[in-house]
Amino acid sequence: MNSLLLNCDIGESFGAWTMGLDAEVMPYIDCANIACGFHASDPSVMRKTVALAVTHDVRIGAHTAYQDLVGFGRRSMDCTPQEVEDLMLYQIGALEGICRSQGTRVSYVKPHGALYQDMMRKPATLRAVMSAVAKYDRQLPLMLMCTRDNSAAQVLGDEFGLTLWFEAFADRAYDAAGFLVSRSLPGAVHHDSEVIVSQAVTLARGEALQASDGSVLHLAAQTLCVHGDNASSVAAVQRIRQAFDSLVQA
Amino acid sequence: MNSLLLNCDIGESFGAWTMGLDAEVMPYIDCANIACGFHASDPSVMRKTVALAVTHDVRIGAHTAYQDLVGFGRRSMDCTPQEVEDLMLYQIGALEGICRSQGTRVSYVKPHGALYQDMMRKPATLRAVMSAVAKYDRQLPLMLMCTRDNSAAQVLGDEFGLTLWFEAFADRAYDAAGFLVSRSLPGAVHHDSEVIVSQAVTLARGEALQASDGSVLHLAAQTLCVHGDNASSVAAVQRIRQAFDSLVQA
Amino acid sequence: MNSLLLNCDIGESFGAWTMGLDAEVMPYIDCANIACGFHASDPSVMRKTVALAVTHDVRIGAHTAYQDLVGFGRRSMDCTPQEVEDLMLYQIGALEGICRSQGTRVSYVKPHGALYQDMMRKPATLRAVMSAVAKYDRQLPLMLMCTRDNSAAQVLGDEFGLTLWFEAFADRAYDAAGFLVSRSLPGAVHHDSEVIVSQAVTLARGEALQASDGSVLHLAAQTLCVHGDNASSVAAVQRIRQAFDSLVQA
Amino acid sequence: MNSLLLNCDIGESFGAWTMGLDAEVMPYIDCANIACGFHASDPSVMRKTVALAVTHDVRIGAHTAYQDLVGFGRRSMDCTPQEVEDLMLYQIGALEGICRSQGTRVSYVKPHGALYQDMMRKPATLRAVMSAVAKYDRQLPLMLMCTRDNSAAQVLGDEFGLTLWFEAFADRAYDAAGFLVSRSLPGAVHHDSEVIVSQAVTLARGEALQASDGSVLHLAAQTLCVHGDNASSVAAVQRIRQAFDSLVQA
Repeated sequence: MNSLLLNCDIGESFGAWTMGLDAEVMPYIDCANIACGFHASDPSVMRKTVALAVTHDVRIGAHTAYQDLVGFGRRSMDCTPQEVEDLMLYQIGALEGICRSQGTRVSYVKPHGALYQDMMRKPATLRAVMSAVAKYDRQLPLMLMCTRDNSAAQVLGDEFGLTLWFEAFADRAYDAAGFLVSRSLPGAVHHDSEVIVSQAVTLARGEALQASDGSVLHLAAQTLCVHGDNASSVAAVQRIRQAFDSLVQA
Repeated sequence: MNSLLLNCDIGESFGAWTMGLDAEVMPYIDCANIACGFHASDPSVMRKTVALAVTHDVRIGAHTAYQDLVGFGRRSMDCTPQEVEDLMLYQIGALEGICRSQGTRVSYVKPHGALYQDMMRKPATLRAVMSAVAKYDRQLPLMLMCTRDNSAAQVLGDEFGLTLWFEAFADRAYDAAGFLVSRSLPGAVHHDSEVIVSQAVTLARGEALQASDGSVLHLAAQTLCVHGDNASSVAAVQRIRQAFDSLVQA
Repeated sequence: MNSLLLNCDIGESFGAWTMGLDAEVMPYIDCANIACGFHASDPSVMRKTVALAVTHDVRIGAHTAYQDLVGFGRRSMDCTPQEVEDLMLYQIGALEGICRSQGTRVSYVKPHGALYQDMMRKPATLRAVMSAVAKYDRQLPLMLMCTRDNSAAQVLGDEFGLTLWFEAFADRAYDAAGFLVSRSLPGAVHHDSEVIVSQAVTLARGEALQASDGSVLHLAAQTLCVHGDNASSVAAVQRIRQAFDSLVQA
Repeated sequence: MNSLLLNCDIGESFGAWTMGLDAEVMPYIDCANIACGFHASDPSVMRKTVALAVTHDVRIGAHTAYQDLVGFGRRSMDCTPQEVEDLMLYQIGALEGICRSQGTRVSYVKPHGALYQDMMRKPATLRAVMSAVAKYDRQLPLMLMCTRDNSAAQVLGDEFGLTLWFEAFADRAYDAAGFLVSRSLPGAVHHDSEVIVSQAVTLARGEALQASDGSVLHLAAQTLCVHGDNASSVAAVQRIRQAFDSLVQA
């Protein structure tokens, strides 16, 4: 009985500002997407975050982003593919520098925010992201969005010799093509924790979801994105973890 | 017959702004102190600078600094030792990320500007700098300033198990204690290239300099700091390189 | 019966990060020290903060700082007096730009954090701060720390033709010279709201405090610094406001 | 006999990095588009630039930009209209703060780089830019690109009660719609100073240009954009100034 790796954005505090319930959510996740100083975090926050991940034996991922602190990396920037590759390498390396000092390593990569969105819709950006990971360390898996048909990304990943981890969401509705329903539409975000846990288990079992138009949607995901923003999202992560543990034991 | 490694600050352009004659000076130096984005440079400039160093088979050093682009890292900042350690690790790692993508590595560390000055006068800062290098990779030599008596730094370096490379200057006058004469005093900076080359050769031979008060000054240096700012400093580096090559062949 | 202006640091959120209970404390204060983007805040946070101040008819002050977002302006930076003057003018003007768009104005200036501390101990920095305010608008009062003897600052303020507003603290113990007892010492910070309100009223009445060595301390202050960080500090501000309102009516 | 105001991007140095021949070009221009710290410049560079403009009695314009130093404001960023309005107000105010200290004022506004391009193609951005200028000071003219048909911008400008200054280029070829021929196409940039001066005089006389397809193109411009990047562009500005002086005297 297989399961899904739980990945969560972590280490998004910055200087005097705190964000997220990192200590609360870390015990329940498998993969910590750690901010690298371009959209959030700073060297000292990164040190504390890596230490927390080490304590809980959580895999460390480089959560790379456009250089836009004030916009939290959520605003698309018209960077060239070369610039994207360069900023990826810089950030992965910076996090690795912090990791090395604590006897650990970066073990996967996940672009953040607008860079993640741009990578999913612009092949040149996806190619730049993959090139950076491949040049850094071909062994590092790259996380990207799971849709109905992942073949285009998979072909490109194969070209670079990369392992891809496709991620799904338990708290979001999907459309028939396997894209997230826009947050501006009703029903886009699930708030009922029963629904969230149920969708997580369905995904983990490799069973089909029902898309927003009622059609059947198969998502072949390796990882599930969860959130540590607040107490209720942390509670949902706990419940998903328990459900997954039961699955594996079954 | 031994010689001194020629080290030079390199890669200090930033975005649309260029600085230094990197391509002109690179062929004549042994060690490139490459800016890591905190006082100068950015991921794309770092990529180009590392490529240039690789082409000329020059050792790559992480030129780490306080986070102060507008002040070029020349203004002391009241950082805690922990903050210094963290920002060192971040910057060394970031440069290593760029290096890895080009099949090379960071091979030494040299703090820049105000961080360098603070390290030389504040033991807590020096300890933080050494701790960062030791935690990152104990094999990486650390460059610091050569004075008459390097024993305090050496004791601390031994404690961390680090190799120290003490650096001297060919274009600056020294006082009796082996510190640089302040730039605000007459005669502090040598402009005559004969004098500069002569001082370089004296240092390389391990012979004594004459300090500003006329006293005899022995400096036990491993490396000489040279400059690629403008055509005349590059010409001086060329002449020092030729003189050193003659020394080694003699 | 006179009173003291209540001033409070406000608008210290930044991008996606929030800080402080601005909406909760604004109704009870007279003067909002609004961050200008160098230690905290950004143009959009500044717009919202100015709007909140306008709603509650609170005076707007430019809370100017060293350029150090990650350090929240709390780390001393070795800026020249000219650099201090320049960064003050930039920040005052930037806040005024936001104010103008809402039909209001900057009406005083208060340096923040390390710049405030440096101004109190380095005459060259104080002179630079005063020069900036005087060049911008001689009518704008400058807030600085009230000590036993404010005469040196007053002489300098008179030279620049500036109005000075000396500020005292209700939640801090003072030493015999009228400086704040270091936070590292016991009893430095008052946590009992009775003590805080009592000290506020004593200061407002122009009566003497008891210094930490038991001596009598007169502080001739025009304003009292209060805090909106959390619910208990906001509650203290409310109680001080009520006490002051009673004083004035009496 | 009327003429065109010569406007030039000025004050684009940053910290230790210099850019442009500001002192050389300032004597020949009418309007200095001064960088405000978001794509270039810093408070100290701004002070020196404003002083230079005052010396040569040149109008000072706020050259506002996206917050992207490393990209020199040339990369489009997906900011909301509200964010654009806020960053405009911040930058205009910041420059005004520096101006006030030298007894002068901001007298017009010109967006820079990607913000300028976005304003010309996205009505929501243009509206945000205009809203900022109107809220700051309805008397300040706004510079934008002159095309064959400026009526859409003019209608919007009238709505905000703004004066618009349309700018043309002497060193660029135009297509039939009055847009600049892309730099990637042959003949896009004029390098022959005879051609440049001739185009400038044609524009100043209100006569028609020949578009890249051979058609007749009328551009109703109030100002001409010139460049101070290097010696040859400064020489071209000098020649245009002389030609314009002759026109006016004629």
